[in-house]
Amino acid sequence: MSESMSLRPRRRFWGWGNLTDELLPQEQATIDGIMQLLGGASSSPPPPQESDFTLAAPLLQPPASLAPCFSNSTYDRLAHSYGKSFADVVRMWNRSVPNPPDWVAFPQDEQGVADILDWAARENIAVVPFGGGSSVCGGVEPDVGLSYRGVVSLDLERLDRVLEVDRISRCARIQAGVLGPDLEAQLRPHGLTLRHFPQSFQFSSLGGWIVTRAGGHYATLYTHIDEFVQSVRMVTPQGMLETRRLPGSGAGPDPNRLVSGSEGVLGIVTEAWMRLQDRPTYRASAAVLFHTFDAASTCLRALAQSGLNPTNCRLLDSAEVAFAGVGDRSSPMIVLGFESADHALGPWMERALELVRDHGGQYDPQAVARSMQAAEADDAGEHRKGAAGEWRDAFIRMPYWRDPMTGRGAVLDTFETAITWDHFADFYAGVKREMQEVLRRVTGRAAAVSCRITHVYPDGPAPYFTYATLGTDKNDLASSLAVWREIKLASIDVVTRLGGTVTHHHAVGRDHRSGYERESSPLYRAALAAAKQSLDPRGILNPGVLIDPVDRVVGITGAVGPFPAA
Amino acid sequence: MSESMSLRPRRRFWGWGNLTDELLPQEQATIDGIMQLLGGASSSPPPPQESDFTLAAPLLQPPASLAPCFSNSTYDRLAHSYGKSFADVVRMWNRSVPNPPDWVAFPQDEQGVADILDWAARENIAVVPFGGGSSVCGGVEPDVGLSYRGVVSLDLERLDRVLEVDRISRCARIQAGVLGPDLEAQLRPHGLTLRHFPQSFQFSSLGGWIVTRAGGHYATLYTHIDEFVQSVRMVTPQGMLETRRLPGSGAGPDPNRLVSGSEGVLGIVTEAWMRLQDRPTYRASAAVLFHTFDAASTCLRALAQSGLNPTNCRLLDSAEVAFAGVGDRSSPMIVLGFESADHALGPWMERALELVRDHGGQYDPQAVARSMQAAEADDAGEHRKGAAGEWRDAFIRMPYWRDPMTGRGAVLDTFETAITWDHFADFYAGVKREMQEVLRRVTGRAAAVSCRITHVYPDGPAPYFTYATLGTDKNDLASSLAVWREIKLASIDVVTRLGGTVTHHHAVGRDHRSGYERESSPLYRAALAAAKQSLDPRGILNPGVLIDPVDRVVGITGAVGPFPAA
Repeated sequence: MSESMSLRPRRRFWGWGNLTDELLPQEQATIDGIMQLLGGASSSPPPPQESDFTLAAPLLQPPASLAPCFSNSTYDRLAHSYGKSFADVVRMWNRSVPNPPDWVAFPQDEQGVADILDWAARENIAVVPFGGGSSVCGGVEPDVGLSYRGVVSLDLERLDRVLEVDRISRCARIQAGVLGPDLEAQLRPHGLTLRHFPQSFQFSSLGGWIVTRAGGHYATLYTHIDEFVQSVRMVTPQGMLETRRLPGSGAGPDPNRLVSGSEGVLGIVTEAWMRLQDRPTYRASAAVLFHTFDAASTCLRALAQSGLNPTNCRLLDSAEVAFAGVGDRSSPMIVLGFESADHALGPWMERALELVRDHGGQYDPQAVARSMQAAEADDAGEHRKGAAGEWRDAFIRMPYWRDPMTGRGAVLDTFETAITWDHFADFYAGVKREMQEVLRRVTGRAAAVSCRITHVYPDGPAPYFTYATLGTDKNDLASSLAVWREIKLASIDVVTRLGGTVTHHHAVGRDHRSGYERESSPLYRAALAAAKQSLDPRGILNPGVLIDPVDRVVGITGAVGPFPAA
Repeated sequence: MSESMSLRPRRRFWGWGNLTDELLPQEQATIDGIMQLLGGASSSPPPPQESDFTLAAPLLQPPASLAPCFSNSTYDRLAHSYGKSFADVVRMWNRSVPNPPDWVAFPQDEQGVADILDWAARENIAVVPFGGGSSVCGGVEPDVGLSYRGVVSLDLERLDRVLEVDRISRCARIQAGVLGPDLEAQLRPHGLTLRHFPQSFQFSSLGGWIVTRAGGHYATLYTHIDEFVQSVRMVTPQGMLETRRLPGSGAGPDPNRLVSGSEGVLGIVTEAWMRLQDRPTYRASAAVLFHTFDAASTCLRALAQSGLNPTNCRLLDSAEVAFAGVGDRSSPMIVLGFESADHALGPWMERALELVRDHGGQYDPQAVARSMQAAEADDAGEHRKGAAGEWRDAFIRMPYWRDPMTGRGAVLDTFETAITWDHFADFYAGVKREMQEVLRRVTGRAAAVSCRITHVYPDGPAPYFTYATLGTDKNDLASSLAVWREIKLASIDVVTRLGGTVTHHHAVGRDHRSGYERESSPLYRAALAAAKQSLDPRGILNPGVLIDPVDRVVGITGAVGPFPAA
């Protein structure tokens, strides 16, 4: 194994998790069971090894002043060649890495980031910002085409500290490269928490959350990370863009909202003042079962519009309940949770359960009562007991299951969106029907499409769909990639054609650009491209992601498709 | 009185309110009392009349196809020459209107707006979008300099309908020109309300709220109008920019947030899908008195960070309590209110009052109990009874008092900002001290500066300062303008130097540009200017407001000052 300049525990370069993470025996059995149902290979081929790959030596060299933070080890280049989407994993299983970064840079500090951008702009080198690398939409892939001298993946892992804590305003100034658990560990002594828990929590960074507008669990009311951004510092090729620390302002369009969601094309966020919360000490949760999905989703809407603002408010359809293997029934289930650092939650939960009963929901009152006996909770803040806890464990572990299944010929993925309530019933039925048709057409066999609603707003839900099927030839993973691509393009088409957004919290990256171009106004994209032009006139930042620079033809094959033709 | 093409009740062109609005005898007595205290003139000179003004005839003519919606009547031109700031009113008292619009356009519909922009861009004519005209920062003043052939004020009053209601998602598609009361009247039959109640509610428009990022009463949690914008349609000189109706999205920087706060320089918002609420049926309110401002503000912070999200949560310092003439004591007061359409608010109010007592606050428990006996309430949703109601009445009426006082030589104004809690105590003391020094230096006499906190966030308050003094020569209102300008520039300097924002909800306009340039990043303004360049390449939209176009020198004298030298 070649040397890495990363100071973090060694991660699996080809998939999810650390090298030392292992599946539990029970998980292995579940996977075997699913693979048997799907009809896939009964065992896995050998997973990718570094020695399977021969990467072309980079032609360009960093200047001596920057060289100490540059790596071109095979491991570092492989680990920065893809994010963690299904397409990324299956391409690794296929030993297909046509576009590794020439170098991976690990700057020590903000000045280091600025120095790298200066050099890159001067030398016409593309720069791909890299936080935790958990992108599932091609957001960190250094496939920048032929119009650059080369490409550097810029890894922010060394900017990983909480620099300042303002206990009075409940805020902290935090470097952008810090990963979720490390961030929470640094905040804990102050009694504070960001409480931003995306599924990728362990392996995603503050800066990545900001530029992709991430959404977490326990995120009703404050759903996207945007709400927590008080101010940012962003290094651009033209210099530093810093916003003022303010609780609110009406001075012009909010500058933080231009940075949020900019996906590394406008600059590199190096630090942010983030709004925090007191660590919750009161909790209440309930798992509620319904006879029909319609009753459950109507109840979910009532909860979302009640003003009670349950911290957690999710709906799993029956296929999802079955897929996640939680509970012993396959009824649609709402997972409901309240949290507070200030007050006991009895009245809140009582009113919520009144709404639940009005809509025919069933729950175990004793389990609800037990949930209110506050206990020290883990970082993701939920009791592990009961159906809600079981479901959550499965949720966090799911990416670990995907990778070995991919190696055995499975094609499985998720896609997420948001839609207003008035269109939801038709949308849900339409997406399920159309995607089941697509799955049948592409693979020649039936496959279920399950749905959970991961976030709710008063004006609409954010549904999250999951499917699992097989490639057309289980012994040839290239077929997995082709099948996935067909399904992916179809899902983008269906979701945006039926009125949803191409992404509620996974970002646009490269994979979602066709949908982004459908749902967004060409004039808005032109304005964004003009803003990019003013901050990144040479167009070196994350080419191919989100938008094209105004006057630069980026020679990538995959600009509007999910990735270059395999 | 010359003809007007406006279909609305005739407004006072030189100040606040409709022509038929009158002061109550009690108000007149209060004003006389204040003027006596200040030492101003004992009676008012004759207020401005149309016949006092002779406006130069416009040289340019609209094309025949547009002419039917164009007016050049003296009244219409005067009524569109200024907003409603102190400087605007005093200039009217001085009969000083050097920059009236050449024409006022009243397009019938969105196509009419687009046609006017097409013509204006072709002919190099500046266009100033005009909603309710209640700007207090020079946002609608047609002072565009010498590089245009002329200037048209584009009044959106005829775009005043609710076009579509989605009861399921609690949203409506609404035209941008509708004023507050008319909007609420159209929503009421559906049981819905926007619940956005700025002080200017009667005379400001939805489009104006959006492009200035307005803030309302009853606006904790959802403070700025931004939060309610689900999608917009904005006509630009390059065509229509429309955003997709979504409850949330993670696809790129939020396009609605570029429109919000754009102050008419990027395009003209013609309609928006807005998030609404059920009309509240449960209420609870309390007026709480404190011995010290420090105790009151610490309590306010505890309330803001409690997660209880009281709909109304304001603090009046003792000078403000005295100034507003509410209650019979001059102790700092917190006005606290909860509202819900879903649940009785006993537990919420109980916990809030626990916090209040922890901080030494005193209140009348019987008044609180009475407040919970829900009653049909008015559009601004508050009981009229008690100190909180008294205060609110005074608040809504204040602009009416200002105008006659201005005529009698008073100089009175407000300025508002926001700051994080960690800096608040020093900020509050510093602003009061420095501004009292400024008032003494400029006018040669002492004057009080009072403060209320109009909005709170978990991470900081939005304080709002008020002062009243006299010009240096009460018989020469030109001195009022000079005095005001000194004070205004000083307040901008103090507020932004001490870490606040130049405006929490009044917008930047022309008057706040020096502060905006201090608090915002030059690179962000460059990005914004580039975005403008892409949407408005000729730079015809609202020149002089917010930012300068990239490559157009706008020949105005007041570009970074509050207004052109008198």
